Amino acid sequence: MIRISILYPNRDGSRFDFPYYVETHMPMSIGLLGAHPGYRGVSVERGLGGAEPGSRPAYVAMCHFLFDSLEDFLAAFMPNAPALQGDMPNYTDIEPVIQFNEVLISG
Amino acid sequence: MIRISILYPNRDGSRFDFPYYVETHMPMSIGLLGAHPGYRGVSVERGLGGAEPGSRPAYVAMCHFLFDSLEDFLAAFMPNAPALQGDMPNYTDIEPVIQFNEVLISG
Repeated sequence: MIRISILYPNRDGSRFDFPYYVETHMPMSIGLLGAHPGYRGVSVERGLGGAEPGSRPAYVAMCHFLFDSLEDFLAAFMPNAPALQGDMPNYTDIEPVIQFNEVLISG
Repeated sequence: MIRISILYPNRDGSRFDFPYYVETHMPMSIGLLGAHPGYRGVSVERGLGGAEPGSRPAYVAMCHFLFDSLEDFLAAFMPNAPALQGDMPNYTDIEPVIQFNEVLISG
């Protein structure tokens, strides 16, 4: 299985609209990507803090999509990329760190 | 729910022993932390690449623990911190980015 991680760095002065992200953007993303048979799930998280007590989290938000394969993710994502990426300015001005991962342990 | 993310930055010349991590360190971690009733699961991943074709992933590996609450995680982790942190040099010389997250969407 493949996990696609979208990490939003926690930068001073940046903007991240959690209500829009959780109530509008993510339901749209799940609706579009979740229609693919290779879709296996999603996790969306808000950064609370770092390992040192009182420290800020490295990422203000994280989103992880789970798919059977990278090919499945790309097949699901590419036709919807304009809609999904075009919606990003509605909730953030942060350039996310995106990476593809092979799932080694899941449970 | 709370997710604890342990992200290992992909630095030139750094060392990460996946066989040891997956076959020895993670089973020990899951054995020690999974004994707590607030434990809800774990995901371990190997970074394959970034969003740009052919680019390297920002993180060589990621580990995410799921717990009912931060208090549950700390109660599970603190007594085992010496054993778990003491085992790290056996698989890597990378200082991980660690952060606590509130799970907003899971499915």
